[in-house]
Amino acid sequence: MPTLDAAMAEVAAEIDRRFDALLAVPDDARATLYQAMRHAAIGGGKRLRPLLVYATADLFGVDRDCAGRAATAIEAIHVYSLIHDDLPAMDNDDLRRGKPTVHKAFDEATAVLAGDCLHALAFDILADPRTHADPAIRAELVLDLARAAGPSGMAGGQMMDLAAEHARFDLDGVTRLQQMKTGALISAAVEAGAILGRAPAAARTGLRGYARDLGLAFQIADDLLDIEGDEALAGKKLRKDGEAGKETFLSLLGVDRGREQCAMLVAQAIEHLHGFGDDADLLRATARYVVERDH
Amino acid sequence: MPTLDAAMAEVAAEIDRRFDALLAVPDDARATLYQAMRHAAIGGGKRLRPLLVYATADLFGVDRDCAGRAATAIEAIHVYSLIHDDLPAMDNDDLRRGKPTVHKAFDEATAVLAGDCLHALAFDILADPRTHADPAIRAELVLDLARAAGPSGMAGGQMMDLAAEHARFDLDGVTRLQQMKTGALISAAVEAGAILGRAPAAARTGLRGYARDLGLAFQIADDLLDIEGDEALAGKKLRKDGEAGKETFLSLLGVDRGREQCAMLVAQAIEHLHGFGDDADLLRATARYVVERDH
Repeated sequence: MPTLDAAMAEVAAEIDRRFDALLAVPDDARATLYQAMRHAAIGGGKRLRPLLVYATADLFGVDRDCAGRAATAIEAIHVYSLIHDDLPAMDNDDLRRGKPTVHKAFDEATAVLAGDCLHALAFDILADPRTHADPAIRAELVLDLARAAGPSGMAGGQMMDLAAEHARFDLDGVTRLQQMKTGALISAAVEAGAILGRAPAAARTGLRGYARDLGLAFQIADDLLDIEGDEALAGKKLRKDGEAGKETFLSLLGVDRGREQCAMLVAQAIEHLHGFGDDADLLRATARYVVERDH
Repeated sequence: MPTLDAAMAEVAAEIDRRFDALLAVPDDARATLYQAMRHAAIGGGKRLRPLLVYATADLFGVDRDCAGRAATAIEAIHVYSLIHDDLPAMDNDDLRRGKPTVHKAFDEATAVLAGDCLHALAFDILADPRTHADPAIRAELVLDLARAAGPSGMAGGQMMDLAAEHARFDLDGVTRLQQMKTGALISAAVEAGAILGRAPAAARTGLRGYARDLGLAFQIADDLLDIEGDEALAGKKLRKDGEAGKETFLSLLGVDRGREQCAMLVAQAIEHLHGFGDDADLLRATARYVVERDH
């Protein structure tokens, strides 16, 4: 198994290469739209979700090109959600991955449309016969991702997050919000690897437990970085939740208990992989990375 | 065959019923999001795209529930595009289908997310086994709709439309823009009926020709209504293209030649159906309606 650093670098390069090919700028009035998509999609981010697709797919010997296409589709959804979340009417962020956000580098209309296009492209990629010869696999991938992206997943969680500025959420409420807002897409990434690998039921159950715990650990780690992190390293504005008066895991648990809870969730995530051998070491290393990262 | 009026009324009621069931308001912080989706999706519009799905599917004896699910998915994409197009950063419209637009009735953030949710829901519906038992059909429906919605279809056309405020488009350019912006989704509706019906190649070719000509005729008729129509009847602001200095079919052809071109396209659309018998009369009547409608 490659080290986590090597695997992350390889996945990041591969996803950049795929977006570069997918988003070749046409010589017509859509050129700006494609430039905006490229600005957001290429050259940035940890590519955690693609890494999870690859690492899970590798457990079952899935063809690397199939895994790469599914990984690109899921990252396209993630990137679209960042573009829309950064809009002035939403989080109103000027900086993302160390670069101006799309509506700052281009304009708001282009940002709305670039997000919409990446959203549609994700399903275009998954439903394309090149992603898998078996249409049942393709349809399952689409269903997995559409549910994770929609009102019962990411976009629903984002709506709850907007409501959290005005309503008080308790720990159960914050957990549900975060499982939808970030957890759903992390789970969809692991599930995509399992779908491509035709993983048997027991393996899927373990992987789902892994993904759920990892998603929550990731969010608590994000909250810790939001309080303690370096804006230059993060490449985005931090400490906004506190300013907006939103409840988070840390406002409810405190920093020390939050850190404990995060470590416990990572241990639990790894425990869910007990049925897998060494070949799940990349998933284990990814779980550890989630708490140890500095951005 | 039912009359066109009866068929349109039946389809409209059925689509309302389906959106009502799909968008039941949850008892949590997403309630406003669902109310916003309901505001946009229920009780309005001509439901032209769902009518085309049903009318095409009926040619091949497709199960009405399957057709209804595909029709709802395509209408969900249409409704999401209207919500986003109406945003202040885009067309900045206050009125749609005689009601306040979503960002006026709610707010901009809710409008962005309601659009995003309807976008994801469309693919959720199509990939669901209830839409068709055969996953190959479901995957083909997803691919058809994702291509029609994305940067080579509706959203790409919308970007061209934004560019048209600054760049001069000739007749070829306007034709391409409109084929993408409105034509692609109209074609996807007809194609969805053909996919569900496993239409043979010759039938598909005829139906594609029908849809392409219908889409262009629809757009010219829309331009005519934009110049000559009644805002109260249209339920939206008219005469905006002229104010924005955009080239349209009518600015390039003039009203009289535009009207002739529209009638010719409808005749051509109907001619493409020559291989079908009486059971395509609803598609023929729909084509005639497109030029004769007053809103």
